[in-house]
Amino acid sequence: MNELGKILDIETAPNLKRFKKGEFIQQPKQLKANAIYIKKGLTRSYIIDSTGKEHIYMFASEGWITGDIEAVEFNEPTTLYIDCLENSEVIVLKKDYPKEADLSKDKLLQNMKKMSRNLGKMQRRILMLIGSPAVDRYNYFLETYPELPNRVPQKMIASYLGIMPQTLSTIRSKIAKGK
Amino acid sequence: MNELGKILDIETAPNLKRFKKGEFIQQPKQLKANAIYIKKGLTRSYIIDSTGKEHIYMFASEGWITGDIEAVEFNEPTTLYIDCLENSEVIVLKKDYPKEADLSKDKLLQNMKKMSRNLGKMQRRILMLIGSPAVDRYNYFLETYPELPNRVPQKMIASYLGIMPQTLSTIRSKIAKGK
Repeated sequence: MNELGKILDIETAPNLKRFKKGEFIQQPKQLKANAIYIKKGLTRSYIIDSTGKEHIYMFASEGWITGDIEAVEFNEPTTLYIDCLENSEVIVLKKDYPKEADLSKDKLLQNMKKMSRNLGKMQRRILMLIGSPAVDRYNYFLETYPELPNRVPQKMIASYLGIMPQTLSTIRSKIAKGK
Repeated sequence: MNELGKILDIETAPNLKRFKKGEFIQQPKQLKANAIYIKKGLTRSYIIDSTGKEHIYMFASEGWITGDIEAVEFNEPTTLYIDCLENSEVIVLKKDYPKEADLSKDKLLQNMKKMSRNLGKMQRRILMLIGSPAVDRYNYFLETYPELPNRVPQKMIASYLGIMPQTLSTIRSKIAKGK
């Protein structure tokens, strides 16, 4: 259990669910959305655009929280597909989890800190998408998800980065030669 | 003063600063970064990519918080330019503001709610950047910043959307004709 699990007293959350590799935790247009804490396994969330192309929004492995935050927070129908890339155990968080769990002030502050860091990471992701070359995006991917390159197919990494799989393989061989 | 100002008891924060239109609140490579609450006025944050092109990250008007969250949270040098599009009054928030201000548990929960909503908005921005046509991006811009189209030049809006100014003007005339 990682830092966030401890902060949120997540072991006391009752809603453990198991999903097999390939199963969906969420699909678009569902009316109810929840944040999902990954206890074990690996999930992917993505959208399909109007031309039918898939774009990966994020990966989440042990200790991460994933979910359709916009749908959760604004009571809107979901837009994301979330499926499992490995057999996974997840804890479904109730919408007002931190409030209901009656966390201490100290844990609330720790959780806010964690949320600020997430905001910082999302800022970086946006800046990467609007103004960074592919090689920088890939390096930041490695920083964010150090354990994923061996767990996720290359074409999914390319989709997350918003680049062509060929571009990614060029980058990887340049990095390999440079070392 | 908007909702967030009230939640954070921002009036008790002492660090009010005034900036004129065109002045910089922050530039890249500064070693110290702070979150900035906009009391009055309008700011823009942006990066300049390796080809010299400007990309707007966000606008912030009355009641918003802006800043280089990644730099603040990870103690890294700043990457964003933040300047004023109008004469502005801002409150510089200390890094551990919510903690130091000794906010009540209730206000902490309200602030977390606000942060979750920001995470939701950033999610939407990312999904827009990776998989939405320009017209959807513009409509979402109008939703997010209903009062800005008359306060911000078109070319800046195009830069925020990641599209060419010509594309934006085509979209705007289509919308105008449709009405």
